[in-house]
Amino acid sequence: MVSVSRADCYVLDSEDPLRDMREEFSLPSGITYLLGNSLGALPRRTAAKVAHTVETEWGRDLGASWNTAGWWDLPQTTGDRLARLIGAGPGEVLAGDSTSTNIFKVMAAALPLRPGRRVIVSDLENFPTDRYVVEGVARALGSYEIRDIGSLDEALGDDVAAVLLSHVDYRTGALRDMDAVTARVHAAGALMIWDLCHSAGAVPVDLRAADADFAVGCTYKYLNGGPGAPAYLYVAERHQDAAYNVVSGWHGHADPFAFEPNYRPADGVRRFAAGSPPVLSYSALNASLDIWETVDMAQIRAKSVALTTLFIDLLDELCPDLTLVTPRDPAERGSQVSYRHQDGYPVMRALIDRGVVGDYRKPDIMRFGFAPLYVRYVDVYDAATALAEVLGKELWREERYQEQLTVT
Amino acid sequence: MVSVSRADCYVLDSEDPLRDMREEFSLPSGITYLLGNSLGALPRRTAAKVAHTVETEWGRDLGASWNTAGWWDLPQTTGDRLARLIGAGPGEVLAGDSTSTNIFKVMAAALPLRPGRRVIVSDLENFPTDRYVVEGVARALGSYEIRDIGSLDEALGDDVAAVLLSHVDYRTGALRDMDAVTARVHAAGALMIWDLCHSAGAVPVDLRAADADFAVGCTYKYLNGGPGAPAYLYVAERHQDAAYNVVSGWHGHADPFAFEPNYRPADGVRRFAAGSPPVLSYSALNASLDIWETVDMAQIRAKSVALTTLFIDLLDELCPDLTLVTPRDPAERGSQVSYRHQDGYPVMRALIDRGVVGDYRKPDIMRFGFAPLYVRYVDVYDAATALAEVLGKELWREERYQEQLTVT
Repeated sequence: MVSVSRADCYVLDSEDPLRDMREEFSLPSGITYLLGNSLGALPRRTAAKVAHTVETEWGRDLGASWNTAGWWDLPQTTGDRLARLIGAGPGEVLAGDSTSTNIFKVMAAALPLRPGRRVIVSDLENFPTDRYVVEGVARALGSYEIRDIGSLDEALGDDVAAVLLSHVDYRTGALRDMDAVTARVHAAGALMIWDLCHSAGAVPVDLRAADADFAVGCTYKYLNGGPGAPAYLYVAERHQDAAYNVVSGWHGHADPFAFEPNYRPADGVRRFAAGSPPVLSYSALNASLDIWETVDMAQIRAKSVALTTLFIDLLDELCPDLTLVTPRDPAERGSQVSYRHQDGYPVMRALIDRGVVGDYRKPDIMRFGFAPLYVRYVDVYDAATALAEVLGKELWREERYQEQLTVT
Repeated sequence: MVSVSRADCYVLDSEDPLRDMREEFSLPSGITYLLGNSLGALPRRTAAKVAHTVETEWGRDLGASWNTAGWWDLPQTTGDRLARLIGAGPGEVLAGDSTSTNIFKVMAAALPLRPGRRVIVSDLENFPTDRYVVEGVARALGSYEIRDIGSLDEALGDDVAAVLLSHVDYRTGALRDMDAVTARVHAAGALMIWDLCHSAGAVPVDLRAADADFAVGCTYKYLNGGPGAPAYLYVAERHQDAAYNVVSGWHGHADPFAFEPNYRPADGVRRFAAGSPPVLSYSALNASLDIWETVDMAQIRAKSVALTTLFIDLLDELCPDLTLVTPRDPAERGSQVSYRHQDGYPVMRALIDRGVVGDYRKPDIMRFGFAPLYVRYVDVYDAATALAEVLGKELWREERYQEQLTVT
């Protein structure tokens, strides 16, 4: 017995100001889905919107839809809708490409803004693609050093051009203080680039208040845009005239249909567009953003803190030997909770077999994501008690859970 | 009266070995669609496939679909399906991103393969994005000169690292001799990069026979993959070990789920992947590729030549004063026919009002694309006679056709 019962959780759900939001999503029955931090659930309205884009905009109206359905402007109009969720202004966010490609574009644009400084600071704990792409930018532009940080203060110096960090750590769920870190980076004369993949849609983000220079993020996690949905990039208005996008395709040209012989960047963030946007994937993303129009981010954060706190509290009681790697202080974490367990992989497989879907990250991390739009307090209860059962009865030791997955 | 009647065209359609293919497409009624060179028509099977991806793969199976539905491998599996259409081998083509981004990636990979050579050759007639992106690569990598060619022989020299040309010209429809040009470029010690946007799916392409080094192309024109569908890139097998993708995201890593601290490129063309693929857009493309599995490219070419020849012949009779800018020799053209007319814009608008959909490119080009999968001989007849009517009766001089579109 634990101090909070499943009946208590029902009461919490009934009092949840976001309780009706779950009805917006099509979730498979019998599943406790705690992986919205990896792939967000399908909004019920998405299928119809995508079908309309396929059958009417494409099939019936064909190329006219570049104008009439707004296809041409999707990177900007979608970007402006995302801006509200991350504290950016109109014209500061462009939706498109993948997070990886966007890191390349903004990093290659940022570095020349700090001539003479030849160091890029990243973090060994950063999501690997951030680190990998920084290597690619350094190789393309030449003569840049990549410095991994333990502590930010040690890494910063007057040789640092730009710092790229994740707002929320993909493994531990730890949340960085965006305002303080940005201020510290600026004090050292460097530019701050934030990766919002694991925070946008789960944690309030205010890029303008933090005075951030650039940012990137994806939309297929908490934002429910669909698998591989268009990512986004943010360029603070003050940098837009000087920031140059080296992936200088015609969609970023000042007058694309003049077919001028030379590249002339568009004003504003539009210059970071390259080629034709994958319209069907934007359609799904915009269906989800229709829901986000109605959401109060303060309610999202409050529920996120409540869900993650409840999960930690329950497991403190049920499984006191489990090693929590997520910060206990809610102010220092995003919307996921991670535990370390040497048999994390078979434990997670045993959990999934019992309908509780989280995931595993090498070498020993079990991740549980709590998307406040559709995760309920009873889901938290069910996940915690299922994990306690798997661990208490040593169910994960069954042979069928021992083989390795190639992709998790 | 012209020497070929509409009844004659009906006979030609009835004898067309590709006649049943039109039934695979959902074309709006009352429209003669001659813009498949810009946006291909919607395959009837696409809506159901996309709906399955949304509702079942995403909605029901969620993140498991990265494995079970093959999402993770979409860039490669889709690339292998495209390979057959462009004469590439398995493992030489990767689907993803936009043509513009792919030009960036392959050009940035090609140039270091010719150290000491600092010139990129392009063409003033090339589609602008090719030219714009080359500028961006030159700026990123530094110290590269861009040389525009009149004739290829004048431009080539021992300082040239790479040549980027379109296989079919987007305005005139002129077709380059891929074998001869590639051989000439190789004789000068340079690498050849082909842009196949306006040829793949309309003209047989054999990259291996031509010994091409790299190629890029889109899939939303003759290949009917949908608006902004994933583009593709080709890297000849012999270059794959040495070619480095500077947009080095985790999807191109040798072991992406090991989350290693440093980038280690995957073997083969996979290293050119960057971030998560926009799955819904791949789904639509793969629906179209199901149709292409059944198509004989020699029949496509034969019909393309017949359609374009008929169009030119009819307009020679009906509008002898029109200036043809597409080569008269079928061996020298792709699957579009372009005419120059000083009032090309209002003429095209008047045509579209009569249900004949082509497009206009500044300053004075009217383009008509003939997608052999679904354009009929009667469509050719209807388009030619409608154009003759508009020109003969000076219908385009009506005031309503004079205003300018922002996007065409």
